[in-house]
Amino acid sequence: MVRKNKDYYGMEGVLNDGCRKIAVMSGKGGVGKTTISVNLAALSSIKHKVALFDADVDCPNVNGFLGIDQRFSVREGKIVPIDKFGMKVVSFASMQENENDPIIWRGPMLSNAIIEMLKKTEWGDLDYIVIDLPPGTSDAPLTIMQAVKPDGVIVVTSPQKASVIDAEKAVNMAKEMGIPVLGIIENMSGKIFGMGGGEKSAKKLGIEFLGRIELDRTITLSCERGVPFVLGDSEQSKFREIVERII
Amino acid sequence: MVRKNKDYYGMEGVLNDGCRKIAVMSGKGGVGKTTISVNLAALSSIKHKVALFDADVDCPNVNGFLGIDQRFSVREGKIVPIDKFGMKVVSFASMQENENDPIIWRGPMLSNAIIEMLKKTEWGDLDYIVIDLPPGTSDAPLTIMQAVKPDGVIVVTSPQKASVIDAEKAVNMAKEMGIPVLGIIENMSGKIFGMGGGEKSAKKLGIEFLGRIELDRTITLSCERGVPFVLGDSEQSKFREIVERII
Repeated sequence: MVRKNKDYYGMEGVLNDGCRKIAVMSGKGGVGKTTISVNLAALSSIKHKVALFDADVDCPNVNGFLGIDQRFSVREGKIVPIDKFGMKVVSFASMQENENDPIIWRGPMLSNAIIEMLKKTEWGDLDYIVIDLPPGTSDAPLTIMQAVKPDGVIVVTSPQKASVIDAEKAVNMAKEMGIPVLGIIENMSGKIFGMGGGEKSAKKLGIEFLGRIELDRTITLSCERGVPFVLGDSEQSKFREIVERII
Repeated sequence: MVRKNKDYYGMEGVLNDGCRKIAVMSGKGGVGKTTISVNLAALSSIKHKVALFDADVDCPNVNGFLGIDQRFSVREGKIVPIDKFGMKVVSFASMQENENDPIIWRGPMLSNAIIEMLKKTEWGDLDYIVIDLPPGTSDAPLTIMQAVKPDGVIVVTSPQKASVIDAEKAVNMAKEMGIPVLGIIENMSGKIFGMGGGEKSAKKLGIEFLGRIELDRTITLSCERGVPFVLGDSEQSKFREIVERII
């Protein structure tokens, strides 16, 4: 693989120096990356200045999960993030006229769009930026890893074998790119998809197992309703522990 | 968007004239595209000559769902598909040394890989080829739509709002590319993810609703075990009806 130069992407100064950059990735889609990203950012933003960047250009889901339907305003030529639940939220969904219009772009356009969005946003002073990546180990994760150089990656998997294999690919991609892996979260544990795949995989790869979240109607409903489950009534002390370990 | 010429990709003669090409796509990942593709191909192959092509280059899951762990053999310079449950199966997983090695490729490489794999395979005489696409509306679906020009696309969604929106993007992408949409399948229906999102969406978009499949441990287990659920003990007459409508 061709490694890019130090600041090939012109990202110098885009995020403040103290800002910790955490990327959430998975390999396989539909295992709860966005759920984890949204709740991680929401919970951290109680004590810290947090931004949430949805790096999925063609199928961005962060806005839906947070009940955001407004589009960006622009101030002095810069995009102003949407302020929601105390976080600064930036998703490509806030640029679309109709939420079901397809964005039929090849990879290089996706990468450019990600870089442009990062550079044209008025991020302000942040403690953390959480980056929700689309599935796979292709353009978007590669661009984020090369351009943003995250301080750490969290890998989300369901307990299913197919998801675990794809999660291991994601872990190995981060390792190849020299990005530290903070650990694996097993999501959607329970009767339907089984249990334990994420933990076994973390052991095998010698990385931390951050915890297990059960497949639960409370969580899927919170996504439908646009309110992070960590801000709801349910205790979710388990997730709080996971977030504290990450932060 | 730039439309490619008639046979820009050199696909002339790669598949026999009578072969019907069906692409399975979703928008959002993890909603069961591969489960549907595998079972659609398996059930059709009882009466027809069927191939299953896994067009997910970086995270291919078809082999896992079919219990395939062998790699391709080559005959007269052509890739010989893996023969499993009466189908001809071609997945990028059959080219990998280690199943958890990441394929960190940008979009144009993914597209080239898809085209090369299609052209270098000894498909033989087929009635149907089922193409399992990766999530999103980017490189792989675009390449398949331009190069293979499917006779029809099946869109899979879970009942969740986020998945339905992404499914609508997939439907609209196919329409923009002039590819007929055969219909929507709602997968993972039930208590956890809700019910009815796919049907409502099909009505709204004026396309056929092909049916609903419940979120069920029998199905997730069949994926783990590598045996399509339509070939198992359970009745699954519902899925049989769906397949008959498609065929």
